[in-house]
Amino acid sequence: MQRRELGFAERRDWIRLYRTHTVGPVAFWGLIGRYGSAAKALDNLPNLIRRKDIRPPTRQQVEAEMDASERAGVRILCAVEPDYPALLRAVEPIPPLISVWGNIALTARPCVAIIGSRNASAIGQKFAAQIAGELGEAGFTIVSGLARGIDASAHAASLKTGTIGVLGGGVDHIYPKQNTELHLEMRERGLLVSESPLGYRATARDFPRRNRLISGLSLGVIVIEAAERSGKLITARYALEQNREVMAAPGSPLDPRTKGCNRLIRQGAALIENAQDVLDCLENARPDAIQPTLFDPGSRYHGAAYDPELNSREMERAKDALLRAASFTPTHRDDIIRASGIPTPIANAALLEMELNADVLVEVDGRISRSH
Amino acid sequence: MQRRELGFAERRDWIRLYRTHTVGPVAFWGLIGRYGSAAKALDNLPNLIRRKDIRPPTRQQVEAEMDASERAGVRILCAVEPDYPALLRAVEPIPPLISVWGNIALTARPCVAIIGSRNASAIGQKFAAQIAGELGEAGFTIVSGLARGIDASAHAASLKTGTIGVLGGGVDHIYPKQNTELHLEMRERGLLVSESPLGYRATARDFPRRNRLISGLSLGVIVIEAAERSGKLITARYALEQNREVMAAPGSPLDPRTKGCNRLIRQGAALIENAQDVLDCLENARPDAIQPTLFDPGSRYHGAAYDPELNSREMERAKDALLRAASFTPTHRDDIIRASGIPTPIANAALLEMELNADVLVEVDGRISRSH
Repeated sequence: MQRRELGFAERRDWIRLYRTHTVGPVAFWGLIGRYGSAAKALDNLPNLIRRKDIRPPTRQQVEAEMDASERAGVRILCAVEPDYPALLRAVEPIPPLISVWGNIALTARPCVAIIGSRNASAIGQKFAAQIAGELGEAGFTIVSGLARGIDASAHAASLKTGTIGVLGGGVDHIYPKQNTELHLEMRERGLLVSESPLGYRATARDFPRRNRLISGLSLGVIVIEAAERSGKLITARYALEQNREVMAAPGSPLDPRTKGCNRLIRQGAALIENAQDVLDCLENARPDAIQPTLFDPGSRYHGAAYDPELNSREMERAKDALLRAASFTPTHRDDIIRASGIPTPIANAALLEMELNADVLVEVDGRISRSH
Repeated sequence: MQRRELGFAERRDWIRLYRTHTVGPVAFWGLIGRYGSAAKALDNLPNLIRRKDIRPPTRQQVEAEMDASERAGVRILCAVEPDYPALLRAVEPIPPLISVWGNIALTARPCVAIIGSRNASAIGQKFAAQIAGELGEAGFTIVSGLARGIDASAHAASLKTGTIGVLGGGVDHIYPKQNTELHLEMRERGLLVSESPLGYRATARDFPRRNRLISGLSLGVIVIEAAERSGKLITARYALEQNREVMAAPGSPLDPRTKGCNRLIRQGAALIENAQDVLDCLENARPDAIQPTLFDPGSRYHGAAYDPELNSREMERAKDALLRAASFTPTHRDDIIRASGIPTPIANAALLEMELNADVLVEVDGRISRSH
């Protein structure tokens, strides 16, 4: 897939397709791979989605979003466009489009994420600020999630040198209220990034997407104070899947706020005590492991041998077998296909329809679970 | 070297030889290896030591120590005797003799050391007590150094289940004063161990010997709160040299009291958060790596081809070369011999005389430095 600017109509079609309720990144690239363009995918969508309540937003709705974005100074970047962050193009599956508000050049510098507990201790917040400031001075852009606690400390300490806030909601939706001033400053001096449309208010299910962007924009992720079952550990897992470095600041075994960090270290994360430790860790990182050798997201989910004439009985049989192979625990796509015994091209076609009709849920990282 | 009880005279001779000012464990085993017995080594000592101020204690002095020990209930165990702790016989070089006061059977159970800062935080002391108590319940004897802080907490929490205090001074010398009650209780219910004679007051140079006993008695060493240049890190190094497990409890990067622990973890020590982590670590330990296949401490330092007729000019040349190869930084014995170009048997003979005359200092772990 070559890098190019999209024209107005094509951008609108990309947005319409990706804003369709059941179209996640996997379905998006599967449809692009199958039909060649977002416009043709939209044309064919009614044949694939039998549920009446699942429809793409209208052209008018999306043009209104585009218009509002432009007036606010928010850009919607599609994955093929030159300004789309290079490291994010190495994420599997690639987020098809992001909204950005602020200085997009910050994504072109080496980025490192600093994340941690919302209820962080004073010393944890101090450490986050210290290390964010020092890494900023060393030329790094600091990426975080604009939450309370560690995130806010890391952003505030790197406003001067460069900071990126990644949001679950729209880039214009300020949350939590106490970060209002920080949020507004980051529009001016930093960058705000989101997969969601303007005005959208995040719910719990949007955080995996946000967390995947945080790690995806960064060479490595530093976790400062995370409890045993913290969402920060999920971001760390995304980082590993994306071949990014995982670093953690340790804490007392008796402090529940650092249990997650200690566990990460035990599992092989780099133990970080200061900015130099981060520099050493990232120096050993191999950026070539991050760059994909092949940028063709469609082929993976589309299946090279897809047969549009696949008869409907064969398709129904494939869906049944795949549904039996799936469970309520998100499972790797390849494992489900293998367990189902269905040939991959047919399985990909069936899974695409199942995702579009919400018969299965496809996580942002491509894992699949049953929805009912 | 076969296990056997020593008779009165032989035990006295071992003690006389080891209590000689410049006879460390390396010289002790070198002399035993060369002359076959402590008695014969004592007979030959005047030929080897040219300095008039270095003389073994008299028979009377040592018999007085033996007498006082017996009256107090303190046993002096030589390395060949059956009750001498098995793990300590795997230490290189083996401590030739130790004084023990209390329940020697505690050394026959699996032992684990818990050490840490004298100026430990409240949470560090709480953690030491908690983990010592739980490991005690799990059947482990807790070994520590009877200092303030972490050591005292670990001992106090394991008095009921079994605890060993290792001292730099004599087993009857109470230090620090605030540990008086603990010290007295440990005589009754635990075990006190030292390489020093009764009544001896420890100085800074005795702590390496004490620390080497702490790790030497234990399957593994847990470090809880240690600053960046703490002596606890030396104990951890001994543990590694002795093939024992090294474990550490992490702490905040901003707390100087835990910098040493974090460094150990970074260098590969197991990160410990609770007793189960310790059990898991020790389960993976290979006790067979600790047991020496050959127990013949004399041969190593004696040199198989030692020639008693070595002429004195050759010996002086060897000493000069070795002194040039040594420096004020303690260096591994093998490296010094290699750098000197002197054949090993001659070098061993020369180094023995140099150690006995205090021309070089031999550390407890066998490393050598110049004394002037």
